[in-house]
Amino acid sequence: MSPSQLPATATAAREALRTQTIELPSWAFGNSGTRFKVFSQPGGPRDPYEKIADAAQVHRYTGVAPRVSLHIPWDLVDDYGALRRHAEDLGVSIGTVNSNTFQDDDYMLGSLCHPDPVVRRKAVDAHLRCLDVMGHTGSRDLKIWLADGLNYPGQDDLRARQDRLAEGLAEIYAALEPHQRIVLEYKFFEPSFYSTDVPDWGTSLLHCMALGDQAMVVLDTGHHAPGTNIEFIVAQLLRVGRLGAFDFNSRFYADDDLIAGAADPFQLFRIMHEIISADALQPDSGVNFMLDQCHNIEPKIPGQIRSVMNVQEATAKALLVDRSALRAAQEAGDVLGAHGVLMDAYNTDARPLLADLRTEQGLDPDPMRAYAASGYAERIAAERVGGSQAGWGA
Amino acid sequence: MSPSQLPATATAAREALRTQTIELPSWAFGNSGTRFKVFSQPGGPRDPYEKIADAAQVHRYTGVAPRVSLHIPWDLVDDYGALRRHAEDLGVSIGTVNSNTFQDDDYMLGSLCHPDPVVRRKAVDAHLRCLDVMGHTGSRDLKIWLADGLNYPGQDDLRARQDRLAEGLAEIYAALEPHQRIVLEYKFFEPSFYSTDVPDWGTSLLHCMALGDQAMVVLDTGHHAPGTNIEFIVAQLLRVGRLGAFDFNSRFYADDDLIAGAADPFQLFRIMHEIISADALQPDSGVNFMLDQCHNIEPKIPGQIRSVMNVQEATAKALLVDRSALRAAQEAGDVLGAHGVLMDAYNTDARPLLADLRTEQGLDPDPMRAYAASGYAERIAAERVGGSQAGWGA
Amino acid sequence: MSPSQLPATATAAREALRTQTIELPSWAFGNSGTRFKVFSQPGGPRDPYEKIADAAQVHRYTGVAPRVSLHIPWDLVDDYGALRRHAEDLGVSIGTVNSNTFQDDDYMLGSLCHPDPVVRRKAVDAHLRCLDVMGHTGSRDLKIWLADGLNYPGQDDLRARQDRLAEGLAEIYAALEPHQRIVLEYKFFEPSFYSTDVPDWGTSLLHCMALGDQAMVVLDTGHHAPGTNIEFIVAQLLRVGRLGAFDFNSRFYADDDLIAGAADPFQLFRIMHEIISADALQPDSGVNFMLDQCHNIEPKIPGQIRSVMNVQEATAKALLVDRSALRAAQEAGDVLGAHGVLMDAYNTDARPLLADLRTEQGLDPDPMRAYAASGYAERIAAERVGGSQAGWGA
Amino acid sequence: MSPSQLPATATAAREALRTQTIELPSWAFGNSGTRFKVFSQPGGPRDPYEKIADAAQVHRYTGVAPRVSLHIPWDLVDDYGALRRHAEDLGVSIGTVNSNTFQDDDYMLGSLCHPDPVVRRKAVDAHLRCLDVMGHTGSRDLKIWLADGLNYPGQDDLRARQDRLAEGLAEIYAALEPHQRIVLEYKFFEPSFYSTDVPDWGTSLLHCMALGDQAMVVLDTGHHAPGTNIEFIVAQLLRVGRLGAFDFNSRFYADDDLIAGAADPFQLFRIMHEIISADALQPDSGVNFMLDQCHNIEPKIPGQIRSVMNVQEATAKALLVDRSALRAAQEAGDVLGAHGVLMDAYNTDARPLLADLRTEQGLDPDPMRAYAASGYAERIAAERVGGSQAGWGA
Repeated sequence: MSPSQLPATATAAREALRTQTIELPSWAFGNSGTRFKVFSQPGGPRDPYEKIADAAQVHRYTGVAPRVSLHIPWDLVDDYGALRRHAEDLGVSIGTVNSNTFQDDDYMLGSLCHPDPVVRRKAVDAHLRCLDVMGHTGSRDLKIWLADGLNYPGQDDLRARQDRLAEGLAEIYAALEPHQRIVLEYKFFEPSFYSTDVPDWGTSLLHCMALGDQAMVVLDTGHHAPGTNIEFIVAQLLRVGRLGAFDFNSRFYADDDLIAGAADPFQLFRIMHEIISADALQPDSGVNFMLDQCHNIEPKIPGQIRSVMNVQEATAKALLVDRSALRAAQEAGDVLGAHGVLMDAYNTDARPLLADLRTEQGLDPDPMRAYAASGYAERIAAERVGGSQAGWGA
Repeated sequence: MSPSQLPATATAAREALRTQTIELPSWAFGNSGTRFKVFSQPGGPRDPYEKIADAAQVHRYTGVAPRVSLHIPWDLVDDYGALRRHAEDLGVSIGTVNSNTFQDDDYMLGSLCHPDPVVRRKAVDAHLRCLDVMGHTGSRDLKIWLADGLNYPGQDDLRARQDRLAEGLAEIYAALEPHQRIVLEYKFFEPSFYSTDVPDWGTSLLHCMALGDQAMVVLDTGHHAPGTNIEFIVAQLLRVGRLGAFDFNSRFYADDDLIAGAADPFQLFRIMHEIISADALQPDSGVNFMLDQCHNIEPKIPGQIRSVMNVQEATAKALLVDRSALRAAQEAGDVLGAHGVLMDAYNTDARPLLADLRTEQGLDPDPMRAYAASGYAERIAAERVGGSQAGWGA
Repeated sequence: MSPSQLPATATAAREALRTQTIELPSWAFGNSGTRFKVFSQPGGPRDPYEKIADAAQVHRYTGVAPRVSLHIPWDLVDDYGALRRHAEDLGVSIGTVNSNTFQDDDYMLGSLCHPDPVVRRKAVDAHLRCLDVMGHTGSRDLKIWLADGLNYPGQDDLRARQDRLAEGLAEIYAALEPHQRIVLEYKFFEPSFYSTDVPDWGTSLLHCMALGDQAMVVLDTGHHAPGTNIEFIVAQLLRVGRLGAFDFNSRFYADDDLIAGAADPFQLFRIMHEIISADALQPDSGVNFMLDQCHNIEPKIPGQIRSVMNVQEATAKALLVDRSALRAAQEAGDVLGAHGVLMDAYNTDARPLLADLRTEQGLDPDPMRAYAASGYAERIAAERVGGSQAGWGA
Repeated sequence: MSPSQLPATATAAREALRTQTIELPSWAFGNSGTRFKVFSQPGGPRDPYEKIADAAQVHRYTGVAPRVSLHIPWDLVDDYGALRRHAEDLGVSIGTVNSNTFQDDDYMLGSLCHPDPVVRRKAVDAHLRCLDVMGHTGSRDLKIWLADGLNYPGQDDLRARQDRLAEGLAEIYAALEPHQRIVLEYKFFEPSFYSTDVPDWGTSLLHCMALGDQAMVVLDTGHHAPGTNIEFIVAQLLRVGRLGAFDFNSRFYADDDLIAGAADPFQLFRIMHEIISADALQPDSGVNFMLDQCHNIEPKIPGQIRSVMNVQEATAKALLVDRSALRAAQEAGDVLGAHGVLMDAYNTDARPLLADLRTEQGLDPDPMRAYAASGYAERIAAERVGGSQAGWGA
């Protein structure tokens, strides 16, 4: 299947790709690592302003990454209006605000689910402060991922923790502006090792449904048990209108947080196929496409550029699926035929199409090469002297 | 912790254990195996009447297994009234009716989710016939487990299949009597290998909520991804009032269908701990405790007796948990203390308590030995000559 | 990376692809299924002769599948010389002989590892008979996969079973002709659910090393724990000179036996990359590339054609890796650069190269289409009337 | 089965339990956590001397933990003779020395497997310095666990890394004294997420066999793929005489490093059953029983005491297995009977036996309570003021 054989599909694909946007996480530009070691890299950003500057580079060379997501308190600044203007000056905007209630000593045994009401109060307040930040940054989404959970059977009451969680979320939800949303992320395990308080999409969805229409589920592609069919969950959440956002990344084992599409590019394609099937790529679908990765050993800006490109390629291939042929084969019960239609699109090299698109938009067709040639990496390594590099601790 | 140290708990435990019942699957007494081979065993039952006779033996020696679940069409008979009286004569009753829409050639690509409306019609009708059977047997629950799913990405439309499923379930649900229920089982994989149409508790719950209050989730302990915290799901489903039934069995890898408690007795205890915590052991809780196992290489009746005893032991240990001490340690954030209270109960040998209880009820304290000494196995081996043994195909 | 940019690599790739061969399993053409149901298909072969005829069709349209592997006793015939000539008449030859010691009642608790020496004797003899067959078919390899294992902890002595296995293998090995080999397959689980007696490559390798140079490990891509890095095992076995054969297939969950490359085409590419890196594609490398799949719901001959093509595409992409660029990036510690070189090859559409190659060899560039157009499927459906279709039972 | 019913077995069990010893890791007493947060605890040790003092408390109350394992460079001191005397003064000795080649920036892409020979030289030298330490501490074992691995396919050459590893290990091995050993640990994943260079027991064993008789495999119970049958590996390594040591801990998901026996006490029992079956509990068996855990949220000294007790209970139960009954049932092919014999021992409450044994040895029968009553925790919290607590970074 060459582009010339598929003029109609390719034209529609090109059109859809022009509107796609991918949000970047500010923390992907700071240092990250494992419990064994965090390696630092030359030129690492020392504050939220520098993180946004780095994120803007990704947008500069890909043209599809116009938003940066913040993590509070990692991205605490005195003046969010100034941070917002800084972003806008660089051609990007501030997106989702991520709460973080896992790095104070008080949170050792939980935050919104903690047995002690004093800690729960503190955790609710931390979220309310995030809503304040959102007022200044113009953000729509408050993303809640909780590190809450247990390491040992019996350590706390599984069900009571759900009730506490529901209560805390309700108070935060009540403070939302009409245009704002809570997006609730689930995670299979880590940093808790016996149970987590929002382990799966079912739990997240139950809480969202109890809260109301402004609560949606976040699907982080790395947060599932081995073998989980993630595109099924995507399809199901889209079907019930509750897929709020993606956190894209790759995993071979646990929450590896590798570059999206690096471990299983076919899975990423299948996910995007469900997105396209539900017409959920368009900006008003309510689905925020975001990266959430750690670049432990590779340079961060190229790591993000590569990830953005991988999401684009998976999207492009999904857009190239011959949907009428697919439907016909499915309805005929033609197992191999239907599978073959899907694979034809996956096996197509989507890079020329994307290179064309970039050229058309005045971008270099090869963002990795263009960034490397820009000298930015060398410049920040030389300029960012003194201070301490940002990481997960700040 | 000896029984004498815990008089109040032990007394309450004894009381609760007296009311516990466990339902047996008729198919556990027929032959089963793997795709590689089904081994037959001497004295295997040749029809539903003989299966029920075998099940009655399990009740005779354990005293807690008074119901037998049927699988239609494996347990098709001409006269269900007669089958019901046969069961009653043997001191047991007929419990849940299980539908089976996976063994006709028509169902190769699905039943309620099939792309062809003719096949879907046939599958709905098969369920309606199960409701007929239930009218004769006095059964409350129609258990639906679907083998529907896909082997290859693209083979069919994931989301359209959910819609078809919802439609089919709605028609079946509409035919329920007010005292009847649909209990909907989920399964991670097998016999489909790319996706199943009810893969997880979230999907089952969504369909049950769409149907109404007479639809509940079935949790089969063997139907989860590796590492899934099953007791969390138990707690969550109890919290939202939608846990309809268990299918107990054990697994090391996939849906191994081994004897309950054989692979991970601590997990079974943790599950029963959530049951006791939610006061869901009592008969009016709406939770049906059932076995669903395959005895591929071991004799079937002793396999079921052993399973029943394992569930009893896990229940007894869960009842021995010192709940006030547990709550106090949990509220104090005493991680090791709270874990220790749970483990104290788990590490207690519950067999003497159960032996006492059996003696008190006029049973042999050792059901395995009593059955072995009864000569039943030898009798059926000698008597059941001619005919063909029942298996998954009939 | 376009073909024109890589003339040298593409030429070498083309050359290598011309010599590639893939062996087909006779049992892929018979019926297979799950423990729930085996669906039959029109025109299914009724004996080994018809299986070979079907296999020859795969070779006819792909040009790279000139050998058929037998399974004894599924492929028992009176005259193996006649079967061999039948194959040769159809342009193929008989390859590996697979032993089967799991379908007699005697083997319920094991074969070479059984506690009873009488059963072990029988199992050794079954293997010796396979060697007889090999004498007539001209086969080099006796493939041993054992269904031996345990369902319950304590059921038998894990270590004693290893010793029995070693003893049985030694007797079989002693009967090998100098040009013959034992290739020993490992499997993580199924049909045993607590332990298998050859669960991993380490166990297989230990036995092979104890036997001698004519014993090699078989790697079935579906026989590993979730998350296992299979290409690492490939690299390690090649490094120590003990990779005897592949059984290619795909899995999402367990031993799903899906079409090779259907579940994770990137993994198949990575495996072939290790093969090419070790120069093990060439016919004298001692590595036999074989399919071992079940086509439960799709037509069998097209299922095999598709699988062969998938292996070819993965091979072609692996051959297109720019190895000097890869090495340079690896030595420089350029994480993203090295990964990028690999991905450049993977993201290339290898289908045009393979289509060219087929045309050059006088084949239709699209084997799936050519087979569909041939009328063979309709012919066998019409002609194969009467008799019973071959399956795993015969 | 009560102790009185099993006099012979119980007496032998008591005898064996008297000789059991369990080695403690110095790092279990310092702070540890996840990549998200390391929580500190009052009274945390600030140097290796204080770690050993804490470890000595565990021995004081359990009587079976007389050795402490060091981690270099975390436990670097100026005078190892002084450290050794400090340990001896407290009633313990220094055991295994663990190398650590993952916390220098140089090691970002590996140590012994690094593409750069300069880094490999540095890593070999780090190990040779560990041998120096062992000369001063009188340690027998150098434990090598490498964090080496890759995050991305293509990042480096899988096979070349094995060759580099073999070369580095050979140089270290050559420097061993005749009474010393290398024990080589394998790990499935983390901190690398695509491949690790010693991912499984097969790889570790291959390297050990290439090195010679003074190289043995270390089995860390947390370092396996989901579903791996660990007791099989134990049995196999004992069978070939290459099981050098255990790192005991628990896992539900990944390398959770929870208290041994906390996640799956039945698995720990099955492991100890293989140990007892091979008569490998005795001190001269060459198997070093060690803990390797992280107490992220629980107090460290009680965490270690609990772990030691859990290993003791699992050992005691394994010793109570009626081995002649087990063998008889196994030989008879009595699946349920043999399983039942094993479960009878597992279901026995082993705590009274261990309490008796402690009393007999002049210890408190309840080590947890005795430690809590000792005031040690309060004393160190008050005394250890100033300085910085030890953690994985130092």
